[in-house]
Amino acid sequence: MPMRRNVFTPDHEAFRSVVRDFVGKEVVPHFAAWEQAGRLPRDVFEKLGDLGLIGTAIPEEYGGGGQNDYRYNVVLQEEAARALVYFGTLRTQLDIILPYFLTYADDAQKRRWLPGIAAGRTLTAIAMTEPGTGSDLAGIRTTAVRTGDTYVLNGAKTFITGGLLADLVLVVARTSTEPGNRRRGLSLLVVEDGMPGFTKGRVLQKLGLKAQDTIELAFSDVRVPAANLLGQEGEAFSYLGANLAQERLAIAVGAVAQSRAALDATTRYVKERSAFGTPVSSFQNTKFELAAVATEIEAAQAMLDRAVLEHTEGRLSGSDAAMVKLFCTEMQARAVDRCLQLFGGYGYILEYPIARLFADARVARIYGGTSEVMKTIISKSLGL
Amino acid sequence: MPMRRNVFTPDHEAFRSVVRDFVGKEVVPHFAAWEQAGRLPRDVFEKLGDLGLIGTAIPEEYGGGGQNDYRYNVVLQEEAARALVYFGTLRTQLDIILPYFLTYADDAQKRRWLPGIAAGRTLTAIAMTEPGTGSDLAGIRTTAVRTGDTYVLNGAKTFITGGLLADLVLVVARTSTEPGNRRRGLSLLVVEDGMPGFTKGRVLQKLGLKAQDTIELAFSDVRVPAANLLGQEGEAFSYLGANLAQERLAIAVGAVAQSRAALDATTRYVKERSAFGTPVSSFQNTKFELAAVATEIEAAQAMLDRAVLEHTEGRLSGSDAAMVKLFCTEMQARAVDRCLQLFGGYGYILEYPIARLFADARVARIYGGTSEVMKTIISKSLGL
Amino acid sequence: MPMRRNVFTPDHEAFRSVVRDFVGKEVVPHFAAWEQAGRLPRDVFEKLGDLGLIGTAIPEEYGGGGQNDYRYNVVLQEEAARALVYFGTLRTQLDIILPYFLTYADDAQKRRWLPGIAAGRTLTAIAMTEPGTGSDLAGIRTTAVRTGDTYVLNGAKTFITGGLLADLVLVVARTSTEPGNRRRGLSLLVVEDGMPGFTKGRVLQKLGLKAQDTIELAFSDVRVPAANLLGQEGEAFSYLGANLAQERLAIAVGAVAQSRAALDATTRYVKERSAFGTPVSSFQNTKFELAAVATEIEAAQAMLDRAVLEHTEGRLSGSDAAMVKLFCTEMQARAVDRCLQLFGGYGYILEYPIARLFADARVARIYGGTSEVMKTIISKSLGL
Amino acid sequence: MPMRRNVFTPDHEAFRSVVRDFVGKEVVPHFAAWEQAGRLPRDVFEKLGDLGLIGTAIPEEYGGGGQNDYRYNVVLQEEAARALVYFGTLRTQLDIILPYFLTYADDAQKRRWLPGIAAGRTLTAIAMTEPGTGSDLAGIRTTAVRTGDTYVLNGAKTFITGGLLADLVLVVARTSTEPGNRRRGLSLLVVEDGMPGFTKGRVLQKLGLKAQDTIELAFSDVRVPAANLLGQEGEAFSYLGANLAQERLAIAVGAVAQSRAALDATTRYVKERSAFGTPVSSFQNTKFELAAVATEIEAAQAMLDRAVLEHTEGRLSGSDAAMVKLFCTEMQARAVDRCLQLFGGYGYILEYPIARLFADARVARIYGGTSEVMKTIISKSLGL
Repeated sequence: MPMRRNVFTPDHEAFRSVVRDFVGKEVVPHFAAWEQAGRLPRDVFEKLGDLGLIGTAIPEEYGGGGQNDYRYNVVLQEEAARALVYFGTLRTQLDIILPYFLTYADDAQKRRWLPGIAAGRTLTAIAMTEPGTGSDLAGIRTTAVRTGDTYVLNGAKTFITGGLLADLVLVVARTSTEPGNRRRGLSLLVVEDGMPGFTKGRVLQKLGLKAQDTIELAFSDVRVPAANLLGQEGEAFSYLGANLAQERLAIAVGAVAQSRAALDATTRYVKERSAFGTPVSSFQNTKFELAAVATEIEAAQAMLDRAVLEHTEGRLSGSDAAMVKLFCTEMQARAVDRCLQLFGGYGYILEYPIARLFADARVARIYGGTSEVMKTIISKSLGL
Repeated sequence: MPMRRNVFTPDHEAFRSVVRDFVGKEVVPHFAAWEQAGRLPRDVFEKLGDLGLIGTAIPEEYGGGGQNDYRYNVVLQEEAARALVYFGTLRTQLDIILPYFLTYADDAQKRRWLPGIAAGRTLTAIAMTEPGTGSDLAGIRTTAVRTGDTYVLNGAKTFITGGLLADLVLVVARTSTEPGNRRRGLSLLVVEDGMPGFTKGRVLQKLGLKAQDTIELAFSDVRVPAANLLGQEGEAFSYLGANLAQERLAIAVGAVAQSRAALDATTRYVKERSAFGTPVSSFQNTKFELAAVATEIEAAQAMLDRAVLEHTEGRLSGSDAAMVKLFCTEMQARAVDRCLQLFGGYGYILEYPIARLFADARVARIYGGTSEVMKTIISKSLGL
Repeated sequence: MPMRRNVFTPDHEAFRSVVRDFVGKEVVPHFAAWEQAGRLPRDVFEKLGDLGLIGTAIPEEYGGGGQNDYRYNVVLQEEAARALVYFGTLRTQLDIILPYFLTYADDAQKRRWLPGIAAGRTLTAIAMTEPGTGSDLAGIRTTAVRTGDTYVLNGAKTFITGGLLADLVLVVARTSTEPGNRRRGLSLLVVEDGMPGFTKGRVLQKLGLKAQDTIELAFSDVRVPAANLLGQEGEAFSYLGANLAQERLAIAVGAVAQSRAALDATTRYVKERSAFGTPVSSFQNTKFELAAVATEIEAAQAMLDRAVLEHTEGRLSGSDAAMVKLFCTEMQARAVDRCLQLFGGYGYILEYPIARLFADARVARIYGGTSEVMKTIISKSLGL
Repeated sequence: MPMRRNVFTPDHEAFRSVVRDFVGKEVVPHFAAWEQAGRLPRDVFEKLGDLGLIGTAIPEEYGGGGQNDYRYNVVLQEEAARALVYFGTLRTQLDIILPYFLTYADDAQKRRWLPGIAAGRTLTAIAMTEPGTGSDLAGIRTTAVRTGDTYVLNGAKTFITGGLLADLVLVVARTSTEPGNRRRGLSLLVVEDGMPGFTKGRVLQKLGLKAQDTIELAFSDVRVPAANLLGQEGEAFSYLGANLAQERLAIAVGAVAQSRAALDATTRYVKERSAFGTPVSSFQNTKFELAAVATEIEAAQAMLDRAVLEHTEGRLSGSDAAMVKLFCTEMQARAVDRCLQLFGGYGYILEYPIARLFADARVARIYGGTSEVMKTIISKSLGL
C-alpha cells in the first residue's frame, strides 16, 4: 500500500493506458535499433500524432486536443520510462519548444505550424547554445539583420537536441545590440529545414541518450522571412526565461520515472540472480541498498507531484522548479549508480538496461541548467 | 513563493497561532534553564492543558478537545522547533503513549486517567526497553504474575523518556510464557508513581535532548491492581506494533521542523557574520550549501506532508512510515551538520542553538527504530 | 611541493621515460581509432615487446628483463593514464595472467610460451567466469575430462577480457568432482587459438573501456594436450586465490592514475573555459570541488604507494589489497563524477576524455571483485 | 597483517610504552571526573613533566629532552586516543604554542620559561581570535602601545584553549598600524597570569572536548614589560603562519587516532551485543560499515604518515598540511558517526565513549582552520 499520489484524474489514467499500450507495441520492440541508429524514425511521431498523444496541449482549432494540461506530458515520460525506453527527442518538443509556439505565435503562424506538430509530421528543435558561450544567453553571437521583410541570419549553434530530423528550428539570434543591456535585442526566428544557407552539422557522440540526436547547426546568410519571427523582436530573453520552470520540471519527471524503472529492474534482477549460491536479494546489503533507493524515490516523487500540481495551476516558481530539478536529478544519479552496482559485471554490459539508464542519467544534472546553476537560483530565493 | 502545503485547515492555523504565542511567552524565556535542569517543570504542562493544547485528541466527555486529528500534534512540534525549543517529553506522551489510552482503556480507565492527561496534571511514560535486550520486545524479561485481582511486577527498564515526572507508567511485562511463541504473553500495565516497590533510577546523561529526561526504572514486587491492565492480557505485542507508524511519523515531523529551524538560523547568521572582511553569505560555498539544505528540506516536507495526510485518513502503512522516518532523519543529520559548519567556531558553542540542534538530532536516526530497522521494514515491502 | 612518493628507484624512472615517449608517439595518435575498433592492433604489443616494456618480469633466459618487480607495471599504467589512454588488455596480461605462467609453468612450458609473451607476439587471456555462475569459482561447470595424454574440454565462458586477440587462453575447468569440497578439482588448461572446437563468441558491448574487448568463449570437445596443464591437476582454486592481491592492487593503480588524469584535465579545462563571462576556475565551487578531489587522490596515492611497497616485498595481504581496491576505486568514482560535472555539457560528449574516463571508471568497483566482496574480505580481517 | 607504518624508530616505541603505562594508570581512572570539572588538574602536567614526556622538544640546557622530533607528539596523541582519553589542553601547548617559544624566544626568555614548561609546572595558552573578527588575523583590534620599556595592552580575546590554567598567555596584539598593510604591525606578547588588568573571563560551554577549557580573556591597561615581547615587534603575522602546518598536522593525528579508537570500541561492542537474538556483528550491514570505516582509516593513516615524515624532515608544505587536515577530519566525522550508529540507543548515552568521540570530533573540521579554509589553500596550490 504505497502512499497515494494526488496528481492524476481518470482522464490522465485513460491516456496512460493508451500510452502504455503504444509503448509496448510500437517502441519497446524497436528501441535497441533506434539507439543504434542514433534517433527515432519519423513514423513513430506520426503514429503518436494519429493517436492524439502529442498534441494534447494544442487547441482543437489547430488540430490538437485542447487540453493544456502538463500532466499528459508527465504520463508520456512515466510510461516510456516504465518500459525502459524514451521517445527520443519528443520531450524536448513537447516540454520545451511547443510552449513557445502556443504562447508567442500569432494566429497565422499557429495555422501554419501547429497542425503538423499535433499530427507528428512536423518536428522541431530549439537552438540556443553556441560554441564557446555555453548557456549564457546574453552572450549569443548569432545575428539576424533585418532588411525589408527578411532577416539575414548568420552564426553557429551547438548541442541541438533533435536537430537531425527537425523541420522547424527555433533559433535565438541577436537582432540588435544595446550597449549596457545584453539581455535586450534577442529574437526568436523559426528557421525551416531546407532554407538556403542552413546546414545541419556533425552529430555529437554522447555518453548516453543514444536514441536522441544532438547536433551542430550553421547559418550562413540564411534569409528568414519576417513572418517567421515568433513574438516581438528583441524580447526573446524574457520568453526563454519564462519557460525554464517547465523544462526543469520535465527533467525531474524523467529523473524520477527512470529511477523507479531502475529500482524495479534491479529488484527483479536480485531476486532471480544468485551469487555464491544464494539469491542476491537475500543479502542484507542488497535489501538495505534497495530500501534506501526506494525511500529516496518516494521523497522525490512527493516533491515532484507537489510541483506538478503547482505547475498545473500556473504557480510553480523558478526557484521551486530549480529545487525539484536539483533534488530529483541528484537522487537519480545516486539511485541508478547503486542499482547498477547490484548487477555486478552485467551492470556494465549495455544489453542490460541498467547500464543505459546509468549513462543516460549523467546528463540530467547538467542540461536544462546544471546543479550548480540550480543552487545559484535557489540561494537567491533564500535571500543570499 | 514556496510550494503550498496541502495539510492544514483554518482550524489548525488558529491552533498554531495560540501555540506560537505560548511558545514565545512561556517556553523560550525559560528553555535554557530547563535544559540545565534536565526537564521541564510540571506547571508548563498544566498551562498547556489550560489552553486546551494537549488534549485535542481526547474525547470531550473526558475533558479533551474531541478532535482525534494528528495534525494538531504536527503543529505543536512545528511551532516549538520554529522557536528552537521543544516541549520536553510531551511529544512522547501525545504521539506514543496517549493512543494506547484512547484505544485500549475501558470506560472506567478513561474516566480515571484521561481528564488528568488532558489537563496536563497527569504525566505519562512508557517502559518497553530493558537493559540488555534493547528494542527486541519478544525478549522482555520483566514479569507480572497475577494473583487474584493483582499483578505482582518484577523487573527493570531503561531508556524511559519522561520517567522522572511520570505519574503513570505504561509497563510492558510478560504475564505468561508460551513455548515457541515469544510474541504472546506480553501485557500492558499502568503503574502509578508511588506504588510500593516501584523506584525511579538513575538519569542517563545524553549527548543532547537535555530538556527531556531519560531514566531507568525498577520494579520489585510491585502490586498492580488488575484494574490497571490496559487492553487484553497477553496481547500487548500487537498493540505496540499498531502504533509504530505514528511514532515514526512524529519523529519525522520533528526532524523536518528542526532542520528548517536550523536553516533559518543559519541563513540569518551568515548574513550578519563576516569572515575575512566579507559577509559569510557572499561566499558561493555558503550559498550552495544552504541551497542544497533547503532543497532537501523541501523534498522531506513534501514526503512528510503526504504521509501526514495518509495518516489522518488512517492509511499510513508501516513501510511508508519507515520510509518517511528514514528519509527525514537522515536528511536532518546532513542538514544540521552542514548548517553547523557555516557557523565556524561558534557552531561548537552550546549557547548557539545550532550546536544543540546538532546534538539533539543525532538520536533521531536511532530511537523509534534505527535507520537499519527502517531499511529492514522497507525492504520487506519491496518483496525482498 | 607535493609530498614525496617513496616508491620508485632511478631504474623505474628511466623505464618511465621510455614508456612516456612510447605512449606519446605510438598510442595517443591512434587511440580514438582503437576505441572505435574495440581493441588495439597486434603490432602495438610487438612494439612494446621490442622496447622491452612488457617482459620485465620474465626471466632473461626466456627473453624477458629478469626484473620481477611489480613497480614496472605501475609505471606502465601511470604513464598511459597520464596521457588519457590505456594499453587495451595489456594490464590483464601483465598483472593477472603472466604470474600464473611465471609461477606454475614448468620449464618446457616456459620455453614454449614466455619468449612470445615477452616479445608481444603472444597475447593471452584468462577464462574463469561462466554465464550464470558469476565469479563463484566453486560453481564452475566447464569440464575437462582426461583421456590418456589429452583433456577433452567442454563448456562456456564469458566476460573474457582480451579474448579476441588471445593466442593462449588460461581456462579454469573442472577435472574432477569431490563431494563436499567444490574447491578441489579445478585445473588450469592453456587452450590455444585455433584448436578445433574452441570458438570465440560474441563481443559484449560495454559502457566503457571501449579499446579493450570482452567476449564469450565456447569449448566443444576441445582436445587439449596434457602438456598444456599449468601446475598440478585439481589445484587451480588455490592458484587463483594467490594472485588476487596483485589483480586488485593493479586495479587500484589504474584508479588513482586515472583520477589524477581527470583532475589534471579538469584543472586545465576550468582555467580555459568561461561561464557567464568569468573563468570557470574563478568560482569558489570549482575551487572547492577540485581541492576536494585532489585531496582524496593524495590520500589514495599514499595508501596505494604503501601497498605497492608491501607487495614489492611480498607482504601484501588479501585484506590489505581489498582495502586498497575498495578505497581507490570508490574514490575514483567520486573524483571522475565531480570532474565531469565541471565540464558542463561538454562532459557528456565522448570527444572530451572526461566522458570516457567516467564510463571507464564505472567497472572498477565491480571487476576483480566488487566493492561488496572487498568489504566482506575486510570485515573478516576485523574478526567479524 | 596490516600494512606497516614507516614512521617510528625504536626510540619512539620506547617512549610509547612509557606513555601507554602513564595513560592507563594516571589518566583513564580519573578522566570522567576531569570532564566533569571541565579541565585536567595541574598535577597531571607535572607528572608528565617528571617522566620527561612533555619536554622532548626543548633543548637539554633548558631542562628538556633535546629531541625536536614531532613524532613524540604523535605518540602522545595516539596513546591517549587509544585509551579513549586525551591530555586536556596539552596538545595545544606542545603542537601550537611551544614552537613559538623555541623559535622566537631569546636566550633570556628561554631560561625564564622553558624549564617550567618542560617540567609541566608552567602552562601556556595562545590568544589570537577576537570576538567578532574570527580567525582573520589581519583584523585584530587588541592593541599594545609601547611606552618606554612597557607595552600597555588593551582588548579582548575569545576561544582561548587552556586559558583557565595558563600561567603564560601568548597574546597577538597590534603594536602599530600601517595603512594599506594590515598584516604588518602585529606582535606577540607573553602575558603572565596575575598581571594587573588581565582577567580570565567566562568559560564557553562546548558541544564536546569537555576536559579542555575554552575561555574568554580581557586586557585592560595591562602593563607588559618589553622583555616579554617574543620575536620582533610587528612581525607576528608571519610567525603565526609559519606554524600552521604543524597545528593542522596535529589535528589530523588526533582525528586518525580517535577514529581508530572508535573503530576498535565499536568492533568490540558489536561482538558482545545482540539484537533480535543475533550478535550485532553477524549482520552484513555491521560488517560492511566497519569494513568501510577501517578502509578509510587506513587511507588516512597512510596519508598522515607520509605527512609526518615530510614534517619531520621540515618539508611539509602548507597545502599538503591542509590536505591532510581536510581528509583526516572529514574522514573522522564519517567514521565516528557510522560507529555511533552501530551502538543503537547506547550510542547516545555519554557514558559510552563513542558518544563523547562523536561530540569531540565535530570541532576538528572547524578549528585550526575550517574545511572551507583548507579547500581555499589547496585550490591555490592547484593554480586556481
